[in-house]
Amino acid sequence: MKLTLLNSTLKADFDIIEKEMELAIQSDMELLRNASVQLLKAGGKRIRPVFVLLSAKFGSYNIHTIKNTAVALELIHMASLVHDDVIDDAQLRRGQPTINHLWNDRIAMYTGDYILARSLEYMTNIQNALAHQILSNAIIEVCMGEIDQIKDKYRFNQNIKDYLRRIKRKTALLIAVSCELGAVSAGADERTHRKLYKFGYFVGMSYQIIDDILDFTGSEKELGKPAGEDLRQGNITLPVLYALRNEKLRPSILKVNEHTSKEDMIDIISVIKNSGAIEQAYSVSRMYLKKAINVLDDLPPIKAKKILRDIALYIGKRKY
Amino acid sequence: MKLTLLNSTLKADFDIIEKEMELAIQSDMELLRNASVQLLKAGGKRIRPVFVLLSAKFGSYNIHTIKNTAVALELIHMASLVHDDVIDDAQLRRGQPTINHLWNDRIAMYTGDYILARSLEYMTNIQNALAHQILSNAIIEVCMGEIDQIKDKYRFNQNIKDYLRRIKRKTALLIAVSCELGAVSAGADERTHRKLYKFGYFVGMSYQIIDDILDFTGSEKELGKPAGEDLRQGNITLPVLYALRNEKLRPSILKVNEHTSKEDMIDIISVIKNSGAIEQAYSVSRMYLKKAINVLDDLPPIKAKKILRDIALYIGKRKY
Repeated sequence: MKLTLLNSTLKADFDIIEKEMELAIQSDMELLRNASVQLLKAGGKRIRPVFVLLSAKFGSYNIHTIKNTAVALELIHMASLVHDDVIDDAQLRRGQPTINHLWNDRIAMYTGDYILARSLEYMTNIQNALAHQILSNAIIEVCMGEIDQIKDKYRFNQNIKDYLRRIKRKTALLIAVSCELGAVSAGADERTHRKLYKFGYFVGMSYQIIDDILDFTGSEKELGKPAGEDLRQGNITLPVLYALRNEKLRPSILKVNEHTSKEDMIDIISVIKNSGAIEQAYSVSRMYLKKAINVLDDLPPIKAKKILRDIALYIGKRKY
Repeated sequence: MKLTLLNSTLKADFDIIEKEMELAIQSDMELLRNASVQLLKAGGKRIRPVFVLLSAKFGSYNIHTIKNTAVALELIHMASLVHDDVIDDAQLRRGQPTINHLWNDRIAMYTGDYILARSLEYMTNIQNALAHQILSNAIIEVCMGEIDQIKDKYRFNQNIKDYLRRIKRKTALLIAVSCELGAVSAGADERTHRKLYKFGYFVGMSYQIIDDILDFTGSEKELGKPAGEDLRQGNITLPVLYALRNEKLRPSILKVNEHTSKEDMIDIISVIKNSGAIEQAYSVSRMYLKKAINVLDDLPPIKAKKILRDIALYIGKRKY
């Protein structure tokens, strides 16, 4: 997240969140602490906390209560990344070695479990039954998304609906819930938190589609991992699905597996880039983004609304 | 659980739970289905569903709503066992090969995640905010217990307090919550579900202490794994803590590690059995059991109360 989009009050509150994140993953177990610090070091855009804070502005905003929701959501996200990296056998995330790579699958498993537990612990600070229900539902979907990811791996005959459901569970839902819970935790009314949920959902869909495009158009330095790595690991994303529709290109894409060489991947990336699939995927992302911006229309004209809009537009243009 | 303790209505309801468990772990992913079926095959005493059902009898009992709570709790328990077996590198559970042994740590990780997700899904059928709060708290404690287990492994200088906290998180809490949620889901009043929580907690503590005793006194056939396996895996249980107090026995126990041979383990088991440690552990278990029975006194004299009492007494005497 480009922090220049936030004003100075929000920046100060954001520092509070970052400090709380460091506290949250403390553990008196050395190994667990090292693994968690490794995760924080890899950074991330912290978009979930940003959405929680901004959405809370539509209710009675108090950083000392809302920080619990923000930290809880970022921790769920982190926990899911740790288990995802086990599933994908990923070696790098944002240029940093993954926990499964630095240690092993077993340690990554319980580091993820630990972070999930810490997340739920933060949520218990929020005295709101609806918030708890929304959160357990989000955890279900995140876990189910993990399973979808395994199920759909290298399944080249999946359709766009499968893809959209997968990215909903993988990304959009947690962003939607960040917006919703920000508003719910701050006591905003039902109409408001439902609108914010929708905004987060549309932004999240748009965000993940761009992420999946960047896997082909980004450089290794920007991505923190080799380009085309998603495809090589069997994650069939929107640009791939569009490229597969081209009968001439199809056979070379179907050959991809985890043993495909770096050189062959470069060829396949260029095939996909020249197929028009990237532009098609971009247009779907833009469609979601437009929906996100439209949802904002009905919300009261507070400063946070403008920032949410700016962030959505920024996401639509981001290069990494 | 000895089903002879239950009356015929409860037995019929219990069959509904068992069928629902089979449905719950269905998956259109073959590997996940096979792994989950492997878990069901290993059976288990299903004590959590029994406690849910019996506790629900203190409110407005309806098997078609309460089954969701019962299945959810048994699934959380199963999910935690799968991850525990990864942590312990266990090869057998109840005489059946573990998922990490049959497949690998990675598959065990996501099978556990999947079962946890399914559990949360079942809970969403219960329209009760308090129930959701209790359940997320239970999941926190179960995850934290997993971490305690790793932290305290082969840590021979731990004290009885460490052990009691660990078994609370590992076992007693989920049994306590089974009783509490049974009552809460059936709309029982606060006083009742608090009492039932306490009953479950005391029974659970007693139950786990006996489990830990049986690791030394049971036969390989009864245990479904070699005797002394907990100790060999570094799980320091109550009999071990008592035996360690004997300065003469202490050095031989301190030598135990995962490479200790079967023959050496037989010697150490006999050392512990002859040290009086088993009797000391039994007396702690009996103390908890007595507290459990006492808590029941204040509850209305319905049939379920007598069955709960019988089950508690049965647990105190069980041999495997």
